[in-house]
Amino acid sequence: MTGDLPFAHVAIIGLGLLGGSVGLGVSAHLPGVRLTGYDADPATRARAAERGLVDEVFPSAAEAVAEADLVILCVPVGAMASAAGEIAAALKPGALVSDVGSSKQSVAKALATALPDQAVIPAHPVAGTERSGPDAGFATLFQHRWCIITPPEGADPELIARLTAFWEALGARVEIMDAAHHDLVLAITSHLPHLIAYTIVGTASDLETVTRGEVIKYSAGGFRDFTRIAASDPVMWRDVFLSNKDAVLDMLQRFSEDLSALQRAIRWGDGDALFDLFTRTRAVRRSIIEEGQDDARPDFGRSDHEAAG
Amino acid sequence: MTGDLPFAHVAIIGLGLLGGSVGLGVSAHLPGVRLTGYDADPATRARAAERGLVDEVFPSAAEAVAEADLVILCVPVGAMASAAGEIAAALKPGALVSDVGSSKQSVAKALATALPDQAVIPAHPVAGTERSGPDAGFATLFQHRWCIITPPEGADPELIARLTAFWEALGARVEIMDAAHHDLVLAITSHLPHLIAYTIVGTASDLETVTRGEVIKYSAGGFRDFTRIAASDPVMWRDVFLSNKDAVLDMLQRFSEDLSALQRAIRWGDGDALFDLFTRTRAVRRSIIEEGQDDARPDFGRSDHEAAG
Ligand SMILES: NC(=O)c1ccc[n+]([C@@H]2O[C@H](COP(=O)([O-])OP(=O)(O)OC[C@H]3O[C@@H](n4cnc5c(N)ncnc54)[C@H](OP(=O)(O)O)[C@@H]3O)[C@@H](O)[C@H]2O)c1
Ligand SMILES: NC(=O)c1ccc[n+]([C@@H]2O[C@H](COP(=O)([O-])OP(=O)(O)OC[C@H]3O[C@@H](n4cnc5c(N)ncnc54)[C@H](OP(=O)(O)O)[C@@H]3O)[C@@H](O)[C@H]2O)c1
Repeated sequence: MTGDLPFAHVAIIGLGLLGGSVGLGVSAHLPGVRLTGYDADPATRARAAERGLVDEVFPSAAEAVAEADLVILCVPVGAMASAAGEIAAALKPGALVSDVGSSKQSVAKALATALPDQAVIPAHPVAGTERSGPDAGFATLFQHRWCIITPPEGADPELIARLTAFWEALGARVEIMDAAHHDLVLAITSHLPHLIAYTIVGTASDLETVTRGEVIKYSAGGFRDFTRIAASDPVMWRDVFLSNKDAVLDMLQRFSEDLSALQRAIRWGDGDALFDLFTRTRAVRRSIIEEGQDDARPDFGRSDHEAAG
Repeated sequence: MTGDLPFAHVAIIGLGLLGGSVGLGVSAHLPGVRLTGYDADPATRARAAERGLVDEVFPSAAEAVAEADLVILCVPVGAMASAAGEIAAALKPGALVSDVGSSKQSVAKALATALPDQAVIPAHPVAGTERSGPDAGFATLFQHRWCIITPPEGADPELIARLTAFWEALGARVEIMDAAHHDLVLAITSHLPHLIAYTIVGTASDLETVTRGEVIKYSAGGFRDFTRIAASDPVMWRDVFLSNKDAVLDMLQRFSEDLSALQRAIRWGDGDALFDLFTRTRAVRRSIIEEGQDDARPDFGRSDHEAAG
């Protein structure tokens, strides 16, 4: 380590929501670190330079990573292999390569294949919003959120410790986990919720009996919550479902069975079954708020009851 | 009308989230109106008096409504019939009875049966939070939200106009709708979203492969959004599903079909189908924000990225 810094030079590949937030977080919390970056989109590179997401934006990934001690790939999971391919020949021998991808087994495999001679430790900060692109990032995105690090077998404990220190400096709490277990946990806490939100927003858009205008007008009854999630980046989410297919299909199967049971309860007027489930689910919300994982105010603290419509 | 007031004396039966918000809204926006109220729960009555949700809380529904020009039933939809039964003999001959129930065909039938000689015009303000009880209400709940009024055939146009003026005074925009159509619209914009949220929170609680603690820790990836809705009042929601059974089952059927289609797309790796749907659903969010039906800030403007965890 250089003084107190876990890594003296960090390169970020992909300067959207995650890449931008990492850059701004490093500037805020690790001010001595040299920050370089690259994005495939020239417009994103220009905007990233304007916002100062990194100290210097390079026109190629190879140039951006050449001097880096830590490279973080912040691209959609389906683009990890090609992003890794672009930097393979340019990396310093001792550099650590990590990422922020939302699924971990497929990314671990892609990076190990593209970078056989490099230290690779994948990671996933469980933090985000529905926005994407170079204007979406903010320095506090990782505050009080968990970052899951999934070291491959035989990973250097000192590198794991430095990557942990890096994420903790950005405000995150770190958990070390097996990649396969990560993919199961995230399938239920993130991937299935997104799949369901996308589905119901699609269902609501295609009805003949209720117009799109009505769906929008009366969305405050619950539907609007799902539209936030269903506004998330299509490329990112396509890649997540394709790369974490088995775990997502497994969770989806369980969800469908539970939904069928509720369907039967409604059909047969079994109020007790409904009441029991609805009582049980309340406790989960309480725990999430106690754990500091959501805003405790009613309605997430939305201010639109007061705001001009 | 008495001066500018649509109703000189309003009685509220049920002093929870909705009843309390109506009371506080009337005090704020219609200060000349006399407000009386009743709740079946003595503790709720005491707390309602303390918070000043109405001018006077009575120990029986009959006493609370005796002088009222407008009675609003703010009880769970399954309790509408008995609440109406309790006031039937005590109502002034010209008094209008309305409600705020989340389903409208079953409530219309229940009120017409219990109050054959009374003017009845059901209504549903599409506004709420996940909280319930006498501490949950606030005066701005209805600001910029829609209130759907579902007058039965032959309803007095002057009473409809006065009820409209009442809700507009509380900050709502009013739409007149057929009760059957209301039930379809709300089945997709409110009831199905709640059913799905309850289901997935249940599914996540019952896994053997992922612990409850993990579900809570990593909930910021999307799941936490569903837990807010799934923390809503169990009695209220049991009643909603039982009373709007046909429309809910119809929407659930469509949702299940769409979910199966997505399941197949994931199984067969059809990225284009996923990408197309995910792109389409983004537009719905934009419309909701343009219509003023949600907070435009990322993540609903949650402040927990900054707040202490
Ligand atoms: N959004 C979340 O909530 C969240 C949370 C946790 C983790 N993640 C993960 O974070 C990663 C990035 O997501 P994001 O939300 O930051 O998406 P984003 O805002 O869309 O940013 C991704 C950026 O990467 C660029 N890119 C794509 N391929 C590239 C390549 N080969 N080389 C260089 N740049 C490339 C994209 O450019 P183009 O636009 O030109 O493709 C885009 O600017 C994903 O793996 C995602 O799973 C996301
Ligand atoms: N919550 C929402 O988001 C929302 C939105 C729009 C419309 N609504 C509708 O508004 C109505 C009330 O819901 P809420 O959210 O205000 O529920 P809430 O906070 O639980 O309030 C309902 C109150 O009514 C009382 N009550 C039950 N039966 C009664 C009776 N026969 N006579 C007098 N009081 C009785 C309850 O007392 P106990 O606790 O002792 O039963 C409770 O205090 C429901 O019909 C619901 O569908 C709700």
